[in-house]
Amino acid sequence: MLNERIRNSELLEKVMTAEEAINFIQDGMVIGTSGFTPSGYPKVVPLTLADKVKKTGEKMRLTLYSGASLGPEVDGAWAEAGIIAKRLPYQTNASLRNEINAGNVEYIDMHLSHSTQYLNYGVLPKVDVAIVEALAITEEGHIIPTTAIGNAPAFIKSADKVIVEINTSKPMKLEGMADIYTTEKPPYRKPIPITHPKDRIGTPYIECGLGKIIAIVKTDMKDKARPLTPTDEVSKMISDNILKFFRKEVKEGRLPKNLLPLQSGVGSVANAVLYGLCDSEFEGLTCYTEVVQDSMLELLRRGKADLISTTSISASPEGFEKFLEEIDFFKDKIILRPQEISNNPEIARRLGIIAMNTALEVDIYGNVNSTHVMGSKMMNGIGGSGDFARNGYITIFTTASTAKNGDISSIVPMVSHVDHTEHDVMVIVTEQGVADLRGLSPKERALAIINNCVHPDYRPMLLDYYNRSIESGAKHTPHILDEALSWHSRFQKNGTMKLKK
Amino acid sequence: MLNERIRNSELLEKVMTAEEAINFIQDGMVIGTSGFTPSGYPKVVPLTLADKVKKTGEKMRLTLYSGASLGPEVDGAWAEAGIIAKRLPYQTNASLRNEINAGNVEYIDMHLSHSTQYLNYGVLPKVDVAIVEALAITEEGHIIPTTAIGNAPAFIKSADKVIVEINTSKPMKLEGMADIYTTEKPPYRKPIPITHPKDRIGTPYIECGLGKIIAIVKTDMKDKARPLTPTDEVSKMISDNILKFFRKEVKEGRLPKNLLPLQSGVGSVANAVLYGLCDSEFEGLTCYTEVVQDSMLELLRRGKADLISTTSISASPEGFEKFLEEIDFFKDKIILRPQEISNNPEIARRLGIIAMNTALEVDIYGNVNSTHVMGSKMMNGIGGSGDFARNGYITIFTTASTAKNGDISSIVPMVSHVDHTEHDVMVIVTEQGVADLRGLSPKERALAIINNCVHPDYRPMLLDYYNRSIESGAKHTPHILDEALSWHSRFQKNGTMKLKK
Repeated sequence: MLNERIRNSELLEKVMTAEEAINFIQDGMVIGTSGFTPSGYPKVVPLTLADKVKKTGEKMRLTLYSGASLGPEVDGAWAEAGIIAKRLPYQTNASLRNEINAGNVEYIDMHLSHSTQYLNYGVLPKVDVAIVEALAITEEGHIIPTTAIGNAPAFIKSADKVIVEINTSKPMKLEGMADIYTTEKPPYRKPIPITHPKDRIGTPYIECGLGKIIAIVKTDMKDKARPLTPTDEVSKMISDNILKFFRKEVKEGRLPKNLLPLQSGVGSVANAVLYGLCDSEFEGLTCYTEVVQDSMLELLRRGKADLISTTSISASPEGFEKFLEEIDFFKDKIILRPQEISNNPEIARRLGIIAMNTALEVDIYGNVNSTHVMGSKMMNGIGGSGDFARNGYITIFTTASTAKNGDISSIVPMVSHVDHTEHDVMVIVTEQGVADLRGLSPKERALAIINNCVHPDYRPMLLDYYNRSIESGAKHTPHILDEALSWHSRFQKNGTMKLKK
Repeated sequence: MLNERIRNSELLEKVMTAEEAINFIQDGMVIGTSGFTPSGYPKVVPLTLADKVKKTGEKMRLTLYSGASLGPEVDGAWAEAGIIAKRLPYQTNASLRNEINAGNVEYIDMHLSHSTQYLNYGVLPKVDVAIVEALAITEEGHIIPTTAIGNAPAFIKSADKVIVEINTSKPMKLEGMADIYTTEKPPYRKPIPITHPKDRIGTPYIECGLGKIIAIVKTDMKDKARPLTPTDEVSKMISDNILKFFRKEVKEGRLPKNLLPLQSGVGSVANAVLYGLCDSEFEGLTCYTEVVQDSMLELLRRGKADLISTTSISASPEGFEKFLEEIDFFKDKIILRPQEISNNPEIARRLGIIAMNTALEVDIYGNVNSTHVMGSKMMNGIGGSGDFARNGYITIFTTASTAKNGDISSIVPMVSHVDHTEHDVMVIVTEQGVADLRGLSPKERALAIINNCVHPDYRPMLLDYYNRSIESGAKHTPHILDEALSWHSRFQKNGTMKLKK
């Protein structure tokens, strides 16, 4: 078994305990980890470090790079131990979020496809130690990744020292799903030769080499996967509205019958949409995305989709067990790519991706806030939504029309933060309906959104704002600046965006 | 001469006056014109139509598509005649701007690279009549374009009827500069085979065919080119700051000695930067851009640049005359591409473009407003800035630190409209200095901008806002929502953003 996982006997000398391995990590370092969403990230080494720092109280402030969000063994434990000074490019952990919003962690909320090239370009400080989860290490010292690729290739390339966590909870049958291809820096960059999600263009391992590997730690800890949440009524209505929209697009000849490659964010709405496709008439689908959740696996299982290209498999605990049981079925239907490739604007534009992502709030002119609660407080981050939304064929943002039991309207006069501008956002979908903003002027967009997407409790208020804005000044994108953010202020003061009776 | 310009004798029957040609244009139609910036657009036909409508008062409301801005013979004359019901994707004309802000024209301010594909995808209504300026028509009925390509290939493809203006003020020696390549729709789109700005991948003509050409009108009207404005002190300081930034990037190994392909917006700052490069030590430069002004021609003339890829040559009147005199020198050093290719995200990312564009205002967290004065009033439009900025290697936005004789600070607590988000904007340059925002958290960005870019008159006020924001709530992107837009409101009320003494 050790022969299968560590294929060069020289490397056996590097096998050690997590307690020994963490001695390579020192205060002030830049650490880069494998992992993308709670999948394929190192667990025992980070957790051991956090325990030690908590116990000894030693000074340990690190910069942490990852692919996207990590499990609680890193983001949670490190935030709680006060280890993280700087963090990029994405996170979803409650403890870390609190530290960010308390001002204790400098968080750089980046387009996921930018993170690799910022590092390659020398804009970000290089990685001191990379910690990566692996299925195995090849005879040449290359890394066979597990269930997520993320930025691991770039971090390993950048680092002088690599700590490998061999995770025996993940079976060797996963070997071969990875397709590792990285790009040159300009001016030497070549076209990425993908013209279909199914195209394999790289190697099944991440280049590393024997010399960089300083420690190998064995573990059988499982990913702390997110539980599957049942589909709620509102998500189901949003899903129905998206399917209606797809049918219309196919009917009017703007989409082929089998649609175009799907990208989907995560969460209950995303799951509902994909389950909706499972139960629909659509067939021959493909996915070119960054995360595969249970619902996307179901598309393959039901024969609705032929193939998924992604950088991470991030199913629920029970969904992942089922996936492993059926690994022979899934193995040649899923390709795991570095996020530099899965999220690449070149490919998003070429393949004509249908990008479906979640908005925190939307304004009447179609600007989308995906990240900041009331303008200042970080929720998770932009993640890959911008990579896909900026360059896809159709850019859809979904949101329930209200939040906080109706006290927040997800559609406001002006968003308190912009992650996706009016120029990029094409379609807004709520449980109320669909606003197709493509080819509309700002005023046409406002009416489409107010009439189709806003909750009835807020519709008259928004229409009133819009009408008074038209009377108040320049009529291209009418606004009353003194009032534009007043809905947010009112919520902060009164706990509701509604007007007092 | 007619043989050289109209190379198929059958077409001679289609030669007519502008007065006759305009009979093909009817109320309610969608018109698509050649032209990009005041270059290569049709003149005599649109002007004749405007004159007729003004004289007869007949109802004529058209949708007008173009590549980018057009000369006053179209945007100006048509706006004044009340002809334009809807306009996209860009404009710069004062009369049209007034109509847009008065609410009389629905204006769709689009990413220029989106306009072609919106049309090809069937999202925008098809073109009824295309009006295109040409050097000549080939024997097969294909169009040899003049000094701008823009969206002409897409409009000709979409239209059933094409009116050609043969412009004899433009010499036949321009033939051969165009390189026309268009993409398939997904899922059939292939990699665009450009790996260097110099790569020619298409044909020197725009495909049209004899059957579509319904009218040929001869004219010798010159483009109403923009006059060259002398470099002012502030623009010169901005230029110096950008050159300093380039030197630092080269020194630190983040840019090659000859930089990477340059994209530059238009205007006095852009000209100053390029003239600055003319006088600098930099050599072997290339440009991959959308517009060539006098200063970029000078880069070629001085031997500083080897080659320019663009979609438009838009020099000043005297600059254009000089260009024509030296056409033998310039001819193989400039490639004119459709804007679908010149502005393509795939190429911007691959080549690693240095994108330099102008901001109207910037906020302390690095969000950029390029389009809307005080949140509502359209200035020009986003143009190609988003195409380049979203996917380039380095995204630079420039602005003078103040406007309106110091009564407006170009750097504000929160921009009143977002065209380029904090995730996309990398470097801000004013005459005060440079803020390199790459790899910084929001709070680090705020201090970099306040300390380096803000005018001293406004620096204490912004620092005060920032410090009070940190105290007031969530500390990721600190804001006081009640105050965030108060600088704009104050300007609207008092005519200045400054506080009263």
